[in-house]
Amino acid sequence: MVGSVGNGLVDLGAAGAGAVTVNGFGKAPNPEAAAVVEGKGEETGNGRREIVMGRNVHTSCFAVKEPDADDEETGEREATMASVLALYRRSLVERTKHHLGYPYNLDFDYGALAQLQHFSINNLGDPFIESNYGVHSRQFEVGVLDWFARLWELEKEEYWGYITNCGTEGNLHGILVGREVFPDGILYASRESHYSVFKAARMYRMECVKVDTLISGEIDCADFQRKLLQNRDKPAIINVNIGTTVKGAVDDLDSVIKTLEESGFEDRFYIHCDGALFGLMIPFVKKAPKVTFKKPIGSVSVSGHKFVGCPMPCGVQITRLEHINALSRNVEYLASRDATIMGSRNGHAPIFLWYTLNRKGYRGFQKEVQKCLRNAHYLKDRLKEAGIGAMLNELSSTVVFERPKDEEFVRRWQLACEGNIAHVVVMPSVTIDKLDYFLNELVEKRATWYQDGISHPPCIARDVGMDNCLCGLHK
Amino acid sequence: MVGSVGNGLVDLGAAGAGAVTVNGFGKAPNPEAAAVVEGKGEETGNGRREIVMGRNVHTSCFAVKEPDADDEETGEREATMASVLALYRRSLVERTKHHLGYPYNLDFDYGALAQLQHFSINNLGDPFIESNYGVHSRQFEVGVLDWFARLWELEKEEYWGYITNCGTEGNLHGILVGREVFPDGILYASRESHYSVFKAARMYRMECVKVDTLISGEIDCADFQRKLLQNRDKPAIINVNIGTTVKGAVDDLDSVIKTLEESGFEDRFYIHCDGALFGLMIPFVKKAPKVTFKKPIGSVSVSGHKFVGCPMPCGVQITRLEHINALSRNVEYLASRDATIMGSRNGHAPIFLWYTLNRKGYRGFQKEVQKCLRNAHYLKDRLKEAGIGAMLNELSSTVVFERPKDEEFVRRWQLACEGNIAHVVVMPSVTIDKLDYFLNELVEKRATWYQDGISHPPCIARDVGMDNCLCGLHK
Repeated sequence: MVGSVGNGLVDLGAAGAGAVTVNGFGKAPNPEAAAVVEGKGEETGNGRREIVMGRNVHTSCFAVKEPDADDEETGEREATMASVLALYRRSLVERTKHHLGYPYNLDFDYGALAQLQHFSINNLGDPFIESNYGVHSRQFEVGVLDWFARLWELEKEEYWGYITNCGTEGNLHGILVGREVFPDGILYASRESHYSVFKAARMYRMECVKVDTLISGEIDCADFQRKLLQNRDKPAIINVNIGTTVKGAVDDLDSVIKTLEESGFEDRFYIHCDGALFGLMIPFVKKAPKVTFKKPIGSVSVSGHKFVGCPMPCGVQITRLEHINALSRNVEYLASRDATIMGSRNGHAPIFLWYTLNRKGYRGFQKEVQKCLRNAHYLKDRLKEAGIGAMLNELSSTVVFERPKDEEFVRRWQLACEGNIAHVVVMPSVTIDKLDYFLNELVEKRATWYQDGISHPPCIARDVGMDNCLCGLHK
Repeated sequence: MVGSVGNGLVDLGAAGAGAVTVNGFGKAPNPEAAAVVEGKGEETGNGRREIVMGRNVHTSCFAVKEPDADDEETGEREATMASVLALYRRSLVERTKHHLGYPYNLDFDYGALAQLQHFSINNLGDPFIESNYGVHSRQFEVGVLDWFARLWELEKEEYWGYITNCGTEGNLHGILVGREVFPDGILYASRESHYSVFKAARMYRMECVKVDTLISGEIDCADFQRKLLQNRDKPAIINVNIGTTVKGAVDDLDSVIKTLEESGFEDRFYIHCDGALFGLMIPFVKKAPKVTFKKPIGSVSVSGHKFVGCPMPCGVQITRLEHINALSRNVEYLASRDATIMGSRNGHAPIFLWYTLNRKGYRGFQKEVQKCLRNAHYLKDRLKEAGIGAMLNELSSTVVFERPKDEEFVRRWQLACEGNIAHVVVMPSVTIDKLDYFLNELVEKRATWYQDGISHPPCIARDVGMDNCLCGLHK
């Protein structure tokens, strides 16, 4: 069963659950209309692939249907809904089993927290100041924030933070704080930064300078310096990647700081660390440069649904209290302090995080990080043994490799792709067994993609370096 | 048991669950240190109250504690966590029972969806274009969006939207779309607009003009016109309130449009409707002016956790597809379309909404709206009978009344206050029984607050008009 949940469900529906469509909850899919593939995913004349877009959901959604007057008596509606949900659950099991491309730890058990699902838990406003709405979970939220502040070495009295909805909210917040500290600052970010960084620049009407990257995906500090020197008159706001989205590259924080100081920006810079995935892994990697507030950084953000694992996206944002105090002076007209991006905030997420942190602790995370790094090395080695070009950055568990030719295969394993490369992010839920299952299937299918002898695996030297490429030219 | 969940739990802990603090999960509270009340909530010399801030959570949070080496064997940690959660649950029950001030429908049962809590459901990116991450719920999300687009009369091919994290995200999105359509537009919003509107102006570096309001809380179109005419040279982006936060006032959309046209802004305006609470109720109120895309509006947002009821905050954003197409041309460098504020998005929220919409349907919501309006009238009448000044806008279920003198009473009933007024928002979970319970307690306590004959109930004529005030001067 290949494809997304939506199509998986339709498959299931067609196979033996006609009720789903019969009752109008689902619509028969039209495969032609559903495909919104722009380009064919093949290399075009100019050597660049066009973007492969996902399928259009509109043609296969579950419409909401007005209840009939007698629904309550017949119970038919309840039965149909239960059937839709059961099929959906089955497809989630299948999709969860075949997931490799996104940095989400899908292995968690929050059964103990199911009892809280009946409550509308909302941490609206500041985490540290209670609002009058009593159904909140701030006491869990602040416990979690304390843990992260300790991890990144910022004193209890000196930090401020909150549980966000996702990594993007963390970046939006960090960059906004930077802009409020330096209203005419220029935002610098490497080309391989997450797209939310550039979205922030547009939203906030900030001048933004893209900095080149090395083959590894790290920021190129020589280029950074050149660009700083072109803009000496304005302060610098820098997004530092603790694990880039595609290659898992960790920008060298120490070099970034040194470059700023050497370029004459001593006290005119603000650093936001986007640690969406690796911000929580790097403290447990021995050789890694330390992310710590003992260095002159302004904020760190990390996702909660990635390495920790959580039913819904969330994140943690830690910044210096002094900056927030400056920010909140600007919003005096409010009855309470408003220093978050969102207003109402999910009160369940902090409890999920609190629960996992308490169960695993620093030691538990350390073990899991080590396992992920080991498994990532295993995957990279096995790929190369099979003649497939691959790269693994030293501090990362993201394995970059030759993009599989078949888009169906990409969707089946939910691989994230860019140009000629794809990646697998080895999370705690990715076991050796799962990797073997994937590897065997990849090797088997790949043999058929190139068996005609006419088409050949793409060269990925431009993306991963000649040493890691195993195309006809470089192997 | 008065106060917030945090303090409630501490109360409970002290009463018979010493384990919570003994094991280091909780800390003994220090009531003095915890209070961050700025001012005393009394009127000061200049006739304005100072803001009463909530308590500091840092002193009573549940710290995350590193597991001991033998925790797994003894099971002590699991037991302690279970005990914390059980106590927390008990306090949630109590806090849910005594909640009146915020527009959240706390009455829902999503037991049928508990089976989905084991999955990391994430609708990252555009709702209509599948991403490669397969564990999503777009098929539910689009079904819900279709329902709302139909409610607000925008054709399937002409709308775009998504399930947001909260009302604030809806406003941030609507105003951003407005700004992208009219980059030099000025943002107009009534003084009684939600604070997220002014936050958006600051974030987006937009010029913002505050418009006066009538006693009812509605936008004053005479003042609006004056301000428009002072800024003839720039397009107008207007936030129209479909139910203000404090008074539940509905801005007159038709008058706003007429004012714009008469002031020479025919095709140079963008209207965002902030329907956080009442956007979903107003379609079911017979006499109400219609919110519809057949009028020249650009976007409507509504919260999902308010009238519908949902364990976590969420919202629905509907806008015109043509605007989004314009917006997404700006982000070509992305592999997929990115037109939302957030990146990763909670995939559970759409399923909660889909479930309730299917069960209740338009007819179900209509009945609930009628019940809420009836109960709101009951509350207002009973308050006035008891000699307590109160106001209820015709199209609203928000009852505004004299602020209770005792902050502990305010916290117990979780009333939202501003200056001399407080409010109760009558949601489907607010029954006549609950209102009677509240009214009896209020009347009883109030008799003691003013029994000395020295202090008197505040005059609220400035807030609700002389007709509704029952202070010594106006009764």
